[in-house]
Amino acid sequence: MNRRMVVFLLGRILLLEAALMLPSVLVGLIYREAITWCFLPAMGALGLLGLFGIKKPKDTTIYAREGFLTVAAAWVLMSLFGAVPFWLCGGFETFWDCLFEIVSGFTTTGASILETVEQLPHCILFWRSFSHWVGGMGVLVFVLAVMPMSEERSMHLMRAEVPGPVKGKLVPRMRDTAKILYAVYTVLTVILIILLCAGGMPLFESVCHAFGAAGTGGFSVKNAGIKAYDSTYIHVVLSTFMLLFGVNFSLYHLILIGKWRAAVRSEELRVYGGIVATAVILITINTFSAAHGFGLTLRDAYFQVSSIITTTGYATVNFDAWPGFSKMTLLLLMVFGACAGSTGGGLKISRVVILFKSARQEVRRMLHPRAVTVVRMEGKPIQSALIRATLTFFLLYIVCLATGVFLLSLGQQDFLTNFTATLACLSNIGPGLALVGPTENYGFFNGASKVLLSLEMLAGRLELFPIILLFSPLTYRHRSK
Amino acid sequence: MNRRMVVFLLGRILLLEAALMLPSVLVGLIYREAITWCFLPAMGALGLLGLFGIKKPKDTTIYAREGFLTVAAAWVLMSLFGAVPFWLCGGFETFWDCLFEIVSGFTTTGASILETVEQLPHCILFWRSFSHWVGGMGVLVFVLAVMPMSEERSMHLMRAEVPGPVKGKLVPRMRDTAKILYAVYTVLTVILIILLCAGGMPLFESVCHAFGAAGTGGFSVKNAGIKAYDSTYIHVVLSTFMLLFGVNFSLYHLILIGKWRAAVRSEELRVYGGIVATAVILITINTFSAAHGFGLTLRDAYFQVSSIITTTGYATVNFDAWPGFSKMTLLLLMVFGACAGSTGGGLKISRVVILFKSARQEVRRMLHPRAVTVVRMEGKPIQSALIRATLTFFLLYIVCLATGVFLLSLGQQDFLTNFTATLACLSNIGPGLALVGPTENYGFFNGASKVLLSLEMLAGRLELFPIILLFSPLTYRHRSK
Repeated sequence: MNRRMVVFLLGRILLLEAALMLPSVLVGLIYREAITWCFLPAMGALGLLGLFGIKKPKDTTIYAREGFLTVAAAWVLMSLFGAVPFWLCGGFETFWDCLFEIVSGFTTTGASILETVEQLPHCILFWRSFSHWVGGMGVLVFVLAVMPMSEERSMHLMRAEVPGPVKGKLVPRMRDTAKILYAVYTVLTVILIILLCAGGMPLFESVCHAFGAAGTGGFSVKNAGIKAYDSTYIHVVLSTFMLLFGVNFSLYHLILIGKWRAAVRSEELRVYGGIVATAVILITINTFSAAHGFGLTLRDAYFQVSSIITTTGYATVNFDAWPGFSKMTLLLLMVFGACAGSTGGGLKISRVVILFKSARQEVRRMLHPRAVTVVRMEGKPIQSALIRATLTFFLLYIVCLATGVFLLSLGQQDFLTNFTATLACLSNIGPGLALVGPTENYGFFNGASKVLLSLEMLAGRLELFPIILLFSPLTYRHRSK
Repeated sequence: MNRRMVVFLLGRILLLEAALMLPSVLVGLIYREAITWCFLPAMGALGLLGLFGIKKPKDTTIYAREGFLTVAAAWVLMSLFGAVPFWLCGGFETFWDCLFEIVSGFTTTGASILETVEQLPHCILFWRSFSHWVGGMGVLVFVLAVMPMSEERSMHLMRAEVPGPVKGKLVPRMRDTAKILYAVYTVLTVILIILLCAGGMPLFESVCHAFGAAGTGGFSVKNAGIKAYDSTYIHVVLSTFMLLFGVNFSLYHLILIGKWRAAVRSEELRVYGGIVATAVILITINTFSAAHGFGLTLRDAYFQVSSIITTTGYATVNFDAWPGFSKMTLLLLMVFGACAGSTGGGLKISRVVILFKSARQEVRRMLHPRAVTVVRMEGKPIQSALIRATLTFFLLYIVCLATGVFLLSLGQQDFLTNFTATLACLSNIGPGLALVGPTENYGFFNGASKVLLSLEMLAGRLELFPIILLFSPLTYRHRSK
């Protein structure tokens, strides 16, 4: 293990986090909030520790193991330091609460332990929402964008942080790929801010809600969330942009270079669109009531489906009060998640497609044991190693879900609460059902449960392996060799 | 498709079912029950239809597809005719209830729609319990034991009906294998009947409860189930025999031919024992109360764990009232199930072991992408095709579970009821939690839900594929070729 290189990378990330706190400080200064000082101790500590990463080691070789461990350690460290401003500002009861809240922010989950948020200072609200934006695209992707590094080494880091079964490069150089991703991300976010302002949402709220939608997070600066805005325009704009941030970002790159036909033909995009349309129709029929009217029912179904499949977690209605069938439809969407290469969580649509096709292939193999069949995705044959990796990913996803529900059962909550809380954290959604429904919060869980759910969020955001490796004896076994 | 051969096989099975009704008729005659006539129409119809299978076709070739379809059709037909005595005896409200009850019997699920059973005549109670015994080892295995057939053809049938990821032959000839399995099964059942009688249980009740334990079914002839017997001896004997029927039957064959060392060294057996011991300890600690005492707590934990992991479903306490952690432990056991090659359901322990090992291999591959690793089971390397088949089986198992929960949500029941009802049917257990807890029954579900749950039971008993193939367009696509 190249420890020097790991320390160097972690140092860089800590310095970056100190810099990422500057905009929140600026917000505090603009609003003349005295509490803004609460960022300074964290920034100071980050700066000091970041000095460890000042000197680049001679040997910059890193392998898969270092890549995964660096990513896992980076996210844990960032969360620990990111929680400090929350802790110092006095709005939270325990440090576990602060940790849960910032992990929920960075992992773009959006699950909160706060009952109300409007009493918090602007700088803290900004930091809370900004963590979604930072975590959505990934911190290491950002590091890659600003730091020159050899191709293979970047790949080891990117592989661990970018969602989806296949990590492709858009352009030959990894660094340029990271820059393109961040450029698309920034431009889309700015457009959304402008559109929200145009709909009458104040600038500060527009910025924070745009961060939440862009990172598919879900933190709001309003106690009532998006429900606070009684405007069909805002609901529809947000729904649509949530869906856009759930699309594979490489498709935007294809459109930018003029290959929009290829983008539209994307198999994953079509399945994604198909699932959204089906879910909206099913829920509209199931929740329709003459009193609410067809238009509003459709609008609410569209918003909730967009919010849940992209794993954002904003809510404009209390879907926990919906009929069972609509709730189950949302639960399925929570498992599916958005497209690979987007900021969304869950299994990812491309994995769902691969799983479906490999199941069909197995059925075919049962019927015709000697026939040779090939599974195709986006027109290309899928290698059997990828199929197996996807099937194993699904297994591990279910194991992570079952472990969470099993351990949470040591508490007093009911099964539906434990099940949907774990699912909503693992898939980085935010609200679940019952005690963690869209009008509730995660505050009532005990400290141990909050740590467990934080780990589920990290496991979900980093696609399981970095967090599983952190706890696996296999990771440390070969150290002596 | 060789339709003549499928019809021939189905005819044989229908004739066999007519013969299998004879013991129930005998019981009715012994107890001088006039209602015994209710078996005659079914036996007559079975006999007449069975005549289609009287003439063996010249071409006896069958392939995998015919094998699966024959097994699926056989189980559906047997259930339809097996429900007729229930329907005629007047103890059930609708035909769907009768169908649910007999499918539950044949698939060894043990889920009942009846609130009380003691009012039923003996011949009906016997048929109900006997269906467990018949379904436990498999009807087609029985046909194989009595009908000469070529090796490859038998394999196609056996593959679809015998539980577990690898279908091995104990002895070179499939027919002899089937005979050995049935001999072990019968001898163990007889020993259990003798032991139960020795504990003071009346003969009729001993026979019926032994059938329920041997087939890992769970139907009782008492309203209160096994709880009706206030005898530690009976509880412990039943617990132990349930566990014995959950062991791979090939191990008994090994013991019979003197290779008991190999039997004891079995990896699956050790994991099975380890899981049972761990679950008993966890539940004993979690449910301990001074009022009940350590001995009784341990006894109840042992009984419930044995009953659930073997997917029998007998209950001596209302475990739905246990703390959440104990209930979750039971839910995990419901998913695991018993050993492959036993009469139990669920995923099967050997599959759980393969899944665990393949997940560990994937983690190792993440760490060392270029290392070559081999997964071993029972000391032998597992082929990658088997690993993939097992991973896909797990995927399909979860898909069947999710589909059931999703469709049941159209009804009015709560999530825990729908989840555990589907799980208990798919894993062939019987009782679940909440509205389908051990003191409740499945009577309140509507007709469509009962058919759905019946399909889940059949899918679980036949290891998913025969039932999935029955509904897959792929099965019928190549007919014209």
